[in-house]
Amino acid sequence: MAYRTHTLKEINRSLENKTITVCGWVNKRRDHGNLIFLDIRDRYSLLQVVVDSENKETFRKAEEIRSEYVLQITGELRKRPLGTENTKISTGEFELVASNINILNRSKVPPFSISDEQKDYDEKLGLKYRYLDLRRTDKKENIIKRHLITNTIRNHFLENDFLEIETPYLTKSTPEGARDFLVPSRLQPGTFYALPQSPQLFKQILMVSGFDRYFQIVRCFRDEDLRADRQPEFTQVDVEMSFVEPNDVMTITEELFKKLNVQFGIECDYPIKRISYTEAMNKYGTDRPDLRNPLEILDFTEILKDTKLKIFRSVIEKDGYIKGFILKNKECHPTRPTLEKINNMAKDFGLPGIAWILFDGSEVRSPIAKFLSENEISSFKKTFDLGDKDAILLAAGKDGLLEALGSLRLFLGNEFNLVNESEFKYLWVVDFPLFEYDEKEKRLNSVHHPFTAPHPEDLEKLDTDPLSVRSLAYDIVLNGNELGGGSIRINNTNLQSKIFKLLDISPEEAQIKFGFLLEALEYGAPPHGGIALGLDRITMLFTGAKSLRDVIAFPKTQSGTCLLTDAPSQVDRKQLDELSISVNIKEEQG
Amino acid sequence: MAYRTHTLKEINRSLENKTITVCGWVNKRRDHGNLIFLDIRDRYSLLQVVVDSENKETFRKAEEIRSEYVLQITGELRKRPLGTENTKISTGEFELVASNINILNRSKVPPFSISDEQKDYDEKLGLKYRYLDLRRTDKKENIIKRHLITNTIRNHFLENDFLEIETPYLTKSTPEGARDFLVPSRLQPGTFYALPQSPQLFKQILMVSGFDRYFQIVRCFRDEDLRADRQPEFTQVDVEMSFVEPNDVMTITEELFKKLNVQFGIECDYPIKRISYTEAMNKYGTDRPDLRNPLEILDFTEILKDTKLKIFRSVIEKDGYIKGFILKNKECHPTRPTLEKINNMAKDFGLPGIAWILFDGSEVRSPIAKFLSENEISSFKKTFDLGDKDAILLAAGKDGLLEALGSLRLFLGNEFNLVNESEFKYLWVVDFPLFEYDEKEKRLNSVHHPFTAPHPEDLEKLDTDPLSVRSLAYDIVLNGNELGGGSIRINNTNLQSKIFKLLDISPEEAQIKFGFLLEALEYGAPPHGGIALGLDRITMLFTGAKSLRDVIAFPKTQSGTCLLTDAPSQVDRKQLDELSISVNIKEEQG
Repeated sequence: MAYRTHTLKEINRSLENKTITVCGWVNKRRDHGNLIFLDIRDRYSLLQVVVDSENKETFRKAEEIRSEYVLQITGELRKRPLGTENTKISTGEFELVASNINILNRSKVPPFSISDEQKDYDEKLGLKYRYLDLRRTDKKENIIKRHLITNTIRNHFLENDFLEIETPYLTKSTPEGARDFLVPSRLQPGTFYALPQSPQLFKQILMVSGFDRYFQIVRCFRDEDLRADRQPEFTQVDVEMSFVEPNDVMTITEELFKKLNVQFGIECDYPIKRISYTEAMNKYGTDRPDLRNPLEILDFTEILKDTKLKIFRSVIEKDGYIKGFILKNKECHPTRPTLEKINNMAKDFGLPGIAWILFDGSEVRSPIAKFLSENEISSFKKTFDLGDKDAILLAAGKDGLLEALGSLRLFLGNEFNLVNESEFKYLWVVDFPLFEYDEKEKRLNSVHHPFTAPHPEDLEKLDTDPLSVRSLAYDIVLNGNELGGGSIRINNTNLQSKIFKLLDISPEEAQIKFGFLLEALEYGAPPHGGIALGLDRITMLFTGAKSLRDVIAFPKTQSGTCLLTDAPSQVDRKQLDELSISVNIKEEQG
Repeated sequence: MAYRTHTLKEINRSLENKTITVCGWVNKRRDHGNLIFLDIRDRYSLLQVVVDSENKETFRKAEEIRSEYVLQITGELRKRPLGTENTKISTGEFELVASNINILNRSKVPPFSISDEQKDYDEKLGLKYRYLDLRRTDKKENIIKRHLITNTIRNHFLENDFLEIETPYLTKSTPEGARDFLVPSRLQPGTFYALPQSPQLFKQILMVSGFDRYFQIVRCFRDEDLRADRQPEFTQVDVEMSFVEPNDVMTITEELFKKLNVQFGIECDYPIKRISYTEAMNKYGTDRPDLRNPLEILDFTEILKDTKLKIFRSVIEKDGYIKGFILKNKECHPTRPTLEKINNMAKDFGLPGIAWILFDGSEVRSPIAKFLSENEISSFKKTFDLGDKDAILLAAGKDGLLEALGSLRLFLGNEFNLVNESEFKYLWVVDFPLFEYDEKEKRLNSVHHPFTAPHPEDLEKLDTDPLSVRSLAYDIVLNGNELGGGSIRINNTNLQSKIFKLLDISPEEAQIKFGFLLEALEYGAPPHGGIALGLDRITMLFTGAKSLRDVIAFPKTQSGTCLLTDAPSQVDRKQLDELSISVNIKEEQG
C-alpha cells in the first residue's frame, strides 16, 4: 500500500468528490468548535483539511495534533463552500473532508514559526535547525530555484555538444592565489592531497586530450579568511573549449544568460556590452561596475589645468588628475547638506576630500568658489550642459584615485536612489592586464592565473614592459557582481615557461608543480580557452536572496562552521595516528 | 575569425565541393610521392586530407608534419575517387583537398601509438600520459559513454520530480564503517572536516525539510586499503524519497535501468527478480549472485543423513550440512581430471575438499564410492534426474560453507563457460539482516548503516534476538556486481537511539556524532528511504570496460596516486604550520 494517492500538486478538479489519501505536515491548526481545520503542507502546496466532530475517532486525533506533525489523511475532496475559496494556494478551491487520519510522526514545538512569515529569528538558530528553516517558503523556494537554474545551465551546455566530465577532488597542491585545503594521505605518510581550487589544469588537460568541449558543475575549495559573504566550498560552472577565441567563449556564455533571463522573466539588451578593463577603471573605478548606476567618473583635469587652487595644481603638476562626477538635479537633487555629507563620506574611501560646486540659480556655491575662474565655470557649464541645481564633485589624486571614486560612485548611487534594483545589467570586461605588481612580495602576480594567454599584440612587451601586457581574459559582470571569468590559455610550453619565469616561479618549482602541464603542452595542445561561473552568486542574484547562505542548502558560517552538524570537530587520536599527523596548536592560538 | 567552419561531425554531402576549414590532430600521415595523405582526427571523427605537390608551400608544410600535430586546414571537400571510400568512418565518402595548412601546434613523438590499436603498453604509462591515453578511441568512448549514462540518469530523476540539491563536501567526521579522509581546519586549529563517505545524513535531513524527492550525482570518499579495483573517490547516484516503502524506491530504480538498457540496446526481463538475502546465500553463497551462471547450491544433507562416510557424518551430527552442485553433462561435460582440478581449487576457497561422484555409464566413479549406498545413489539419481556423465560435487561444513561454495560456483561458471558475457541479469536482494556480529570487536555491526529501519515484523526481536532481525534494505545486483543499495530509514528518535545502543554506541557518543539527526527526527520526520548507486561501476558494466580506471577520466592507482599530477605530494612547511599540524612519520613507515 502506497502512503499517498496524490501529492498536493496533483489536486485538481478531476478529483472532486473522490476519496484520496495525502501526506504532509501540519502548517496550521484552527479550532472552530465542531470543526477542526488543518492546513496540510507538502513540498508543492497547501491543502485545507476539515475534521468534523461527528467523525469521533478522527476528531479526537485531530484534537491532539499540533504544528509540524506528519500526517497521512484519507478523505473526500470537496469543493469549498462559495466565498471561502483561497486564491493564494493552488488547491484553494477545495478542502479534504477527513475520514481517517494517521499520525505518521509527531513534532516538538519548533524554535521559530514555520507557517508565519516570521523574519526576526536569529540566522544562527535557522542554521542550527536547518531542517526547519528549509521548510519555510522563502528558503525552500531558493533551493528549488537553484535546482532549476542548475538545470538550465546544464541543458544549455548539453545542447551545445559539451561533454560533462568529472575531475578529481583529491588532487595536487598547486596554490593558485588562494590557500589550499589539504587532505593527509594515509597510504603515503607525509604527503597530502589538496582539494581543487578549480579544475583548471584538468580541464586544460581534457582539451589536450581532444574532448573539444567540456563542462562540469563542480565544487571548488578555497581556504581563505572568510569575508561576510564567502564560503569555503562553492560551486563553479566550469567550461573549456578548443579551437576558440575569446568571442566564442563569450558568445556561448551570453546565450546561457539569455536563457536564464527568459526563465526568470528578465528583459535585457543583447549583445552584452563589452568594455576594456582600462575603460571600466576610468569610467567606474572598478573592474565590476554596476551599470544600473548611471554615474560615470569624469576627468576635469583639462578644464582645471590652470587652476588657482594650490592642492589641485600640485596634483596636476605631479601628473595627477582632477576627476569626479556630475550630479544632475533631475536625477540626484544635490543639496548643500548632502554635498557636505558626501565630502565626509569620501574620506572613508581614501580620498583627501571632495570639492563640490553647486549651481544655484545664477550663483555658484562651493567651498572653493573663490579659486574658480569665470572661464573654468563656463567651461564646466558648456562641457557638461549644467543647469540650475546641478552639481560637480571634484577629487584630486593619482594612485588609487579611480578606485576611491568607484567606491564613492556606489555610495552616490545609493544616496540618490539611482539604482533600479529590479533591473539586470550585464557587462563584459575584457583586455585585463596579464600581470599586477605585488608590492609586498616585490614581484609580478597573475591577474587571472598563470595559464592565461597574453594578448598576441602585446607579446613583445613581455620582456620590456610586462605590466602593460594585456591578456586574453574576460569577466562577466551583473549589477556590480562578478559572475565569472575566463580566458584563452597558453598552449605553448615555451611561452608557459616564460610566464612562470616572469612570475618568479623557478624552473624547478614549475617542474614540480606544473611539470605535467608543461609536458602536455608539448604533445599537440590545441588552442583553447574557457570560463568559470559562480553558481552560488548567479543563484543569489536571480532569486534576489540577500546572502549566499540563503541559496546553499547547508552553508557554513564565517568561521567555516556548519551549525547543523558542528563540523569541523575534534577527531580521535587514532585517526590522526593513522594519518601520521599530529596537532600542534601554537600558544597564541590555543 | 573562427578557427574552423565545421567539426568533423558536420561533414556531409551538403558540403561537397565547398571550401571549408577544419581543425584536428594528425592521426596518420601517408606519403605517396606527389601526394601526402593526412588523416585528421577530432573528437567526432576522422577525415582524409590530400595535399598535392603542385601546391608547393602547403606540400612543404605537409612534409614536416608528424603524428599528433594540431592543424587548421582549409580546402575543398571532394568526393573520394570511386572505390577508395572508407565505410568505417563517418566522413569516408569524402576527402579534403588542402589549399592551406596552418600548424597550430607541434607534438613530440608520443610514448605509445595513438592511431594504432596498440594494447601492449604499460597501464602506468597511459596514466602518466593520460592526455594521450584519452585520445585513443576506446578510452575516449568510455568517457563519452559515461557522460551519456550520467545524462540518462539525471534526466530520469528530473522527469520524476526529484530535486537536485548539493550537500557539503567539508563535513563532519562520523565514520560509517570506512575510514574518513580528514581536512584540517585552519580557522579552528585542532579540528577537522571529513570528506563525505556519502551524503547519507544530509539527504535524510532534506527529507525532514520536506523536499520529498532528492537526488544528486556526487563524489564520495573512503580511505580504505585499495583493492585492485577500488578508488579513494567515487561517484554516487544518491537518491532519497519521502512517504515511501521499499517497493517505491525499487520501482523508480528499476525504471532507470530500463532506460539505460534501451540506451545500450540491452534486453532484459522485467520486473527484476527479487530474492531474500537468505535465499541468495542458500542458493548462490553470496549476496550479489551472478544469475547468468545457472548453477545453484543444493542441499544433499537429507539424502546423506545416514552416510557411512565418517567426515560427512560428524559434520551432520554437529548440525552441519552436505551441500554442493550438480554438473549436468550437457552444460558442463564434467570429466574425471576436471573433477580432480575442482577438488584442488576448492581448498583455495576454504573448503576442506570436494567429494565428487561421476556417473559413467552404469558405473559410479568417486573417491568416496565405497561409502555410498545403493539407496543414496538412487536417491541422487531420482531427485536430480541424473544421467550418463552427469556429476555431483559434495562439500561438508557449517559456518562459511555457503560462502565457499559461492566462490566455487564462480570458478565452475568460468571453468565450464556457463556465463554468457553479453547477457545482463539484474536481481534485487532484499530482507538483509539488520546486524552482523563483529568477531574481532565482539559487538554488533550494521549490515547497511545505523540508519536502516528494521523490518516492522521483526521489531520485537530487537531485544531478544537482534541477529535474526531483518532490515528494510535492498541491493540491486547486475551480473554479480552490486550496483547499489538502499533502505527505508529510521524516522523515530527512540528507535534510532535504541539501534545506536545495540551497536554499542553510547548515548554520549551518539549525541556528539549524530545528535543533530536525533534532534531532527523529533521535529516531524516523514517516513523516508532511498538508494545509492555506483556510477563508476554502472559505467564499467555498460561500457564493458575491464577496470574502473577505464571509466574515470583521471583515476588513481592502488596506492592512491595520480600518476599524471603526482598527487599526493609533499607540501610546504608553511602550509602545515598554518593548519597547526605536523607530520609524524613512524619508524616502521619511514
